[in-house]
Amino acid sequence: MKELQDRIRRDGMVKPGNVLKVDSFLNHQCDVALFDHMGAEWARIFSGRHIDKILTIEASGIGIACCAARHFGDVPVVFAKKTQSINLEGDQYVTKVYSYTKQREFPVIVAKRFLKAGERVLLLDDFLANGKAMQGLIDICGEAGAQVVGIGIAIEKGFQSGGEILRRAGYDVESLAIVTSMDAETGTVEFA
Amino acid sequence: MKELQDRIRRDGMVKPGNVLKVDSFLNHQCDVALFDHMGAEWARIFSGRHIDKILTIEASGIGIACCAARHFGDVPVVFAKKTQSINLEGDQYVTKVYSYTKQREFPVIVAKRFLKAGERVLLLDDFLANGKAMQGLIDICGEAGAQVVGIGIAIEKGFQSGGEILRRAGYDVESLAIVTSMDAETGTVEFA
Repeated sequence: MKELQDRIRRDGMVKPGNVLKVDSFLNHQCDVALFDHMGAEWARIFSGRHIDKILTIEASGIGIACCAARHFGDVPVVFAKKTQSINLEGDQYVTKVYSYTKQREFPVIVAKRFLKAGERVLLLDDFLANGKAMQGLIDICGEAGAQVVGIGIAIEKGFQSGGEILRRAGYDVESLAIVTSMDAETGTVEFA
Repeated sequence: MKELQDRIRRDGMVKPGNVLKVDSFLNHQCDVALFDHMGAEWARIFSGRHIDKILTIEASGIGIACCAARHFGDVPVVFAKKTQSINLEGDQYVTKVYSYTKQREFPVIVAKRFLKAGERVLLLDDFLANGKAMQGLIDICGEAGAQVVGIGIAIEKGFQSGGEILRRAGYDVESLAIVTSMDAETGTVEFA
């Protein structure tokens, strides 16, 4: 998606350790017009496939998923939680994933009431790198008996293994920008 | 806002300890059509007041704020973070608030780049009870020299002190549903 790639080139910041900071428009400050265009693009890509629900994970996925949902007929958005709450009692699907950016393991929690057997689910998230968070959502869909119809990613780090692992497992991963290389010294970003 | 009150009456669940669960449409599963209507209502209420930016806090505020932003001319949405990340280095505004639902203190973090002196900010969140999270956002706006133009809340627990404290301090708090009482035995919810 050219608009997203141009925006990454313009406003993204490459940091040592293969860190791509896009917090000025994607995951701290949010450009909702861009989110809307991203939603429209996923709707075009996944058109013809019936989607019952969008599943994402807090926090950065939520805004993207909520803006995208209107392009899928206002389907419900469910966001997996990363912390237990006294308001989250009851039957839950829980799995654990390790976050490199947070440098710790965290739980991924979805209340069973919001994910049912046979539901056709689109998974959305802001980043795909090693794919751990996405694997957590897939595991939860599997437990629920829900069907993963597709996976929409804003920015995939193509030089990390998450995308390859998911595609090899048969998932239709549609990333709007696939970064093939970045250089912290020059600040350049190359796309597939 | 009648639509939100009706929805709370229909799908909200009252639990002992003054807990109102609205996770089927507001803060775990999200009804984005409802969020859109809530955004339109805040835009009507705050019309005529120039808004540069919407500030909210992860996680439940993000979807609401992103859906509302399009009714304010697609202004940027900034969401305060509750955990440090290696991607969040640099100058930050940080304050601490205590969460009763999570039963622990957590930081509220906004990168200084995304909140500037003189900016006119609308604060949005899903719940207002004791007002601790909202006070954290106000403190951060104060540090930044940004002006809080208004506070939009989906559900205010009118029997807790947050709303009164903020209004007495001069803030224009606009809650779309103000719960005056709830009864866990009968499941009834009364609104102002």
